[in-house]
Amino acid sequence: MKNYRVGIDLGGSFIKYGIFDEHKRVVKKWEKPTPSFEAEAMIRSICSDIVGFTKEASIRDNKLQGAGLGIPSSITSEGIVLDAPNLGWKSVDIKKVWSCNSEIPLYVENDANVAALGEYFHGSSQVDSMLFVTLGTGVGGAVIIDGKLIRGSHGGAGELGHFPMNPMEEEACNCGKKGCLEQYASSRGIVRVAKKALEYSDKKSVLRDKTGLSAEDIFSAFHEGDLVAVQALEVFGETLGRALACAAGTIDPQEIVIGGGMSSAGEVLVDYVKKYYYQYAFTPCKWTKIRLSSLGNKAGIYGAMELIPD
Amino acid sequence: MKNYRVGIDLGGSFIKYGIFDEHKRVVKKWEKPTPSFEAEAMIRSICSDIVGFTKEASIRDNKLQGAGLGIPSSITSEGIVLDAPNLGWKSVDIKKVWSCNSEIPLYVENDANVAALGEYFHGSSQVDSMLFVTLGTGVGGAVIIDGKLIRGSHGGAGELGHFPMNPMEEEACNCGKKGCLEQYASSRGIVRVAKKALEYSDKKSVLRDKTGLSAEDIFSAFHEGDLVAVQALEVFGETLGRALACAAGTIDPQEIVIGGGMSSAGEVLVDYVKKYYYQYAFTPCKWTKIRLSSLGNKAGIYGAMELIPD
Repeated sequence: MKNYRVGIDLGGSFIKYGIFDEHKRVVKKWEKPTPSFEAEAMIRSICSDIVGFTKEASIRDNKLQGAGLGIPSSITSEGIVLDAPNLGWKSVDIKKVWSCNSEIPLYVENDANVAALGEYFHGSSQVDSMLFVTLGTGVGGAVIIDGKLIRGSHGGAGELGHFPMNPMEEEACNCGKKGCLEQYASSRGIVRVAKKALEYSDKKSVLRDKTGLSAEDIFSAFHEGDLVAVQALEVFGETLGRALACAAGTIDPQEIVIGGGMSSAGEVLVDYVKKYYYQYAFTPCKWTKIRLSSLGNKAGIYGAMELIPD
Repeated sequence: MKNYRVGIDLGGSFIKYGIFDEHKRVVKKWEKPTPSFEAEAMIRSICSDIVGFTKEASIRDNKLQGAGLGIPSSITSEGIVLDAPNLGWKSVDIKKVWSCNSEIPLYVENDANVAALGEYFHGSSQVDSMLFVTLGTGVGGAVIIDGKLIRGSHGGAGELGHFPMNPMEEEACNCGKKGCLEQYASSRGIVRVAKKALEYSDKKSVLRDKTGLSAEDIFSAFHEGDLVAVQALEVFGETLGRALACAAGTIDPQEIVIGGGMSSAGEVLVDYVKKYYYQYAFTPCKWTKIRLSSLGNKAGIYGAMELIPD
């Protein structure tokens, strides 16, 4: 009987592995920096990692039911990775490359979708529908309705990061448009907002002398009462709260969950989002619960494992 | 065998009836001004209309499989009409009132949802998913994914009219918030926008001398090249295009369909929406088809009929 599953979360900075037993409990997990490989070399490396890790966990290869893989890219229903700028990949037929290296069946999905599935099936609350937003270098998202992941007709469902939030914005987003949510609510975005605030005001701020200003610097300055950090969080909360009010007005989810690397900043994110969401949301979804992902950065491996059918 | 169905579209201004045969083809339809009745009197009036109309169409009462009713209100899954300001109703247990007056089974749904169902099943294109937006006195909407109407966890899915589109707006929407889509893209909204443009500029305009300025006046002035009317349509298109980019970024529908009373203004609406939607939408849903409802104001009776199960 094949009763073990591997969940893999391939991010731009780290690659995480989890081996799960027949009860979908994690048996063992590993994390390592993402090597800067081309797609084929990366898949070879993942396949050899799986062999190594299963051996380490005393599981035989033929006991593996499959591997689930979350990738930061839009992925077609045929398993083509369209564009993964954080990995430097374009138009990769991932299943083909995989089948050359491993006989274990592979299931692939976009990383935000995978994290949402992890939170949906293994997170702290039981709901039917969820809007999941990932805050990291960029902003991603996913939609689950009646327990089903909504991919959209071009794989574009849940793409909150590129909601047009500010028609007056003059700087361009990575996507080429101007005024995207990502320009205000990602880790890069909040740094950009803080730098602008420093540039246009004379406010005293511990951020002023930082070289290589990071989102972490802003959160730590916020906790010291730094006024520029407060201002950056206000912009973050106003923009994300307004975007979430639009997304909730579209699908009216039971719950809104915030995940991604930046969510490690904690409840302060939820507080600022709530402040504006509750002001902007229309009556029926005015009191929708907003919370941090309870699985944190483990959501990806749990969700990737859930891609593997019984 | 019961093989006829009645579809009823109860609007603030008109009530429309359609009788459909076993092939879901319309046998006969009627339209009359909505009487300003309390809920109970209205239901009595609808029941007696059905009796009269079926007699007129030579159909016996016992041949009716059911009646479907679209109402401009949020409706709970138990059939409670929560708040229908255009009818002056609040918290009406519509199924209870109905069962006192008729033995024909009744199925009730929000009017925008019903119009979307009509367009989905009987409109000009065959798609799996659709974002439907109704432009009338207000702005409503509905979401269909994989052929299923998405109601949301509080009945608030598809509520595009109250997307927060302008945080700088100073006037309040009917809902109490400020800057809702409805304030720019409904028939009332476009009149408000034109009035503001007249107030803040000295531009020559045929709209300047109109008493009781209407959306129709604006569209007719637009076709004469009136600059204030053009300006109002630009604001309409920019705001609705931006809102649709957010809704499409949430569910990535195959098609966006514009219906409701104001859609009789024709292709000019689609042109202005496309101009901005294509500028704001994120790559995967950048070329989503946007079109006018092909059923026009008949969408409601078709969709109401579709509420009745086989």
